[in-house]
Amino acid sequence: MEEFLENLTSEQLAEVKRQYDIYSNGANEIIPEIELKNKIARSLLKNSPLKIKLGLDPSAPDVHLGHTVVLNKLKQFQENGHIIQVIIGDFTGKIGDPTGKSTVRKQLSMEEVKKNAKTYFDQFNKVLDMEKVELHYNSKWLSRLNLEEIINLSSSITVARLLERNDFSERFSTGKPISLHEFFYPLMQGYDSVELESDVELGGTDQHFNVLMGRHLQEHFGKEKQIVMLLPLLEGLDGVEKMSKSKKNYIGVDDKPSEMYGKAMSIPDELIIKYIDLITDLSLEEKNLTKDQLENRKLHPKDAKMLLARTIVRMYHGVEDSEKAEEAFKKVFQNRSLPDEIPVVKWQGELLVPLVDLLVELKLIRSKTEARKMIQNGGVRVDTVKVNDIQLQVNTMDQPIIQVGKRKFIKLQVKLI
Amino acid sequence: MEEFLENLTSEQLAEVKRQYDIYSNGANEIIPEIELKNKIARSLLKNSPLKIKLGLDPSAPDVHLGHTVVLNKLKQFQENGHIIQVIIGDFTGKIGDPTGKSTVRKQLSMEEVKKNAKTYFDQFNKVLDMEKVELHYNSKWLSRLNLEEIINLSSSITVARLLERNDFSERFSTGKPISLHEFFYPLMQGYDSVELESDVELGGTDQHFNVLMGRHLQEHFGKEKQIVMLLPLLEGLDGVEKMSKSKKNYIGVDDKPSEMYGKAMSIPDELIIKYIDLITDLSLEEKNLTKDQLENRKLHPKDAKMLLARTIVRMYHGVEDSEKAEEAFKKVFQNRSLPDEIPVVKWQGELLVPLVDLLVELKLIRSKTEARKMIQNGGVRVDTVKVNDIQLQVNTMDQPIIQVGKRKFIKLQVKLI
Repeated sequence: MEEFLENLTSEQLAEVKRQYDIYSNGANEIIPEIELKNKIARSLLKNSPLKIKLGLDPSAPDVHLGHTVVLNKLKQFQENGHIIQVIIGDFTGKIGDPTGKSTVRKQLSMEEVKKNAKTYFDQFNKVLDMEKVELHYNSKWLSRLNLEEIINLSSSITVARLLERNDFSERFSTGKPISLHEFFYPLMQGYDSVELESDVELGGTDQHFNVLMGRHLQEHFGKEKQIVMLLPLLEGLDGVEKMSKSKKNYIGVDDKPSEMYGKAMSIPDELIIKYIDLITDLSLEEKNLTKDQLENRKLHPKDAKMLLARTIVRMYHGVEDSEKAEEAFKKVFQNRSLPDEIPVVKWQGELLVPLVDLLVELKLIRSKTEARKMIQNGGVRVDTVKVNDIQLQVNTMDQPIIQVGKRKFIKLQVKLI
Repeated sequence: MEEFLENLTSEQLAEVKRQYDIYSNGANEIIPEIELKNKIARSLLKNSPLKIKLGLDPSAPDVHLGHTVVLNKLKQFQENGHIIQVIIGDFTGKIGDPTGKSTVRKQLSMEEVKKNAKTYFDQFNKVLDMEKVELHYNSKWLSRLNLEEIINLSSSITVARLLERNDFSERFSTGKPISLHEFFYPLMQGYDSVELESDVELGGTDQHFNVLMGRHLQEHFGKEKQIVMLLPLLEGLDGVEKMSKSKKNYIGVDDKPSEMYGKAMSIPDELIIKYIDLITDLSLEEKNLTKDQLENRKLHPKDAKMLLARTIVRMYHGVEDSEKAEEAFKKVFQNRSLPDEIPVVKWQGELLVPLVDLLVELKLIRSKTEARKMIQNGGVRVDTVKVNDIQLQVNTMDQPIIQVGKRKFIKLQVKLI
């Protein structure tokens, strides 16, 4: 690639630096960094936007904030006038797994693929300006490849190199079968970059091998090589495991404002900066200021979390809901008062009931053992007063409010026969 | 596959046995034997011939008798009414090796492929009835395969299984690169069997992996599986190395009768039976009789070799040339007299010349050292008399006949100025 950085004015150089700082903030790896700077320089000099690629599996997802790490990065590129290329990997979706072994690679109809793509888009729309996004289905070019072209494609890579990919090497070394066709998936994904002449491809750190493949294949086909930008995988609310639906440690983009706010407030302090960097749309200046203040103890972690929570709710529900969620949160959790709306349960059982039984009966807690533990840990309140006695009997005629943990409330009403 | 053997009359069963004995004679391996018998049974019951496949590389060969091992086996099938499918692997020939690494897989034009195919056919015609042979170019189906079909094809085989192929495993274990596209060659060859629904595929023992691939892929695509028949690789005249042009230990199908006869007579005794089994068209009865007589010392190896030599010359040049070659051979080598035609060299040098110098000058022997050795070993005759004296001077005015070894003769004529 030609050298553009040297031909810039000092203003242009400052602009390259400004953009580069935004893009690189929060990224794990940029391969190679200098080329990204050079590409930004060219986009300024030639007034032609960069093409930023994101490939997607066509399985239907509930997008959660873990997914928005890449979306927020794309948004930064989009805000600076670059073009976002979203590729729906419908080709692989349509073939499925011919061995029938994998439940993941289930064969999808074109309708299913389109429907899933729409699901993505509705959710992506909350972060990106989807009207400006280029949408591609890779079956358009992959279904047309013939054996001669595929042989050419395959000649660019060795078997040993493919076996280096983490999951392959693990299976190979433990004698678990790898079907030959599985080698095609990284190649196909890489070939998308050849076809679309992408300048930058984004992926999670677990996509290291696949995203590099795009760069490799572009070179094989005599195209300019893309920059590989790897973004961290976001830990979930537990602070340990990767955010995922199955682990139930996620914030969904469709979560209600109060739920979203409450979940964001529950993350461990160590994750505050990572969350702010990766999933908020705060400006780099705001992010850096918050980091500084946290480090210098000018900002309490709880307040930083509130900034995070407020921002996230604002991004997905708007300013008004965001303010409401914050107010409600303060009311319940900071003033220890009660929320505005508490679900009411009509009680038909005994009038005097052991609290432990009541907690299980109301499905606030799953078992009596857990209920006792929760009481001992100070996690249960009756009419806002913390309960200390695990033998406590509740008089249901008092229509008490039972609270478990921070967010579960039930008001009992005795139903007279 | 349905069971046909059980439904045969005793005459039909005898016919199955007769054919099976012919086909299996000389073969190294038949996988599985019982299925071949069953296929023969079906061909009798349904009166439908078997399809016998032979795949060929489209590089231009000078066919030698090593190649005719498979041809003679095909001929046996053909003589029993089965259909021979010859497949020219033009697809791989036309792609060549996209990495440009291999000189073997040079890209061939369609004209070159057709020309090479014709070369094959002209030579094959000497063994097989080529008018009854089905000719196929595999580009017809391979060039049409798309990525979806190739992924299906590839899903049938694991990477580990492919790496078991001898040459791959050797390269993989020593860290030499294997490009992914090389994995396609056995798959493509195997796919030909799917397309042509072959019943039996022939190959040398070095083709074990590739020929089994055809059987494997037929099963993957829900077709009846072919029988794999592996034939031995024929050692050359030296009795050690595989017959090959580069090793100069071969008999070519285009060799002249006397040369062919002489070369056949020069093979080591241990190879007589193998040659008779694999490259002659003698009937199974004749072959077995010869084997018996040799084993029981009723037939001298020299006479068995003469049967072999006579048969080969008859196969490629006809009865008349065969008889002539035998007579000429007897004359020279058995009666120690001279052959009918001896090349004449006009001599322009000194009239009296040391024999050693003369041998080198006439290019009968490469160096004087070798010439001296040859004389000492009794390998040089002048006018049919063995020379003992390495200092011997030859009077060229005598127009002497110089003989080196068994088959090199030159008659000198003095050219007067």
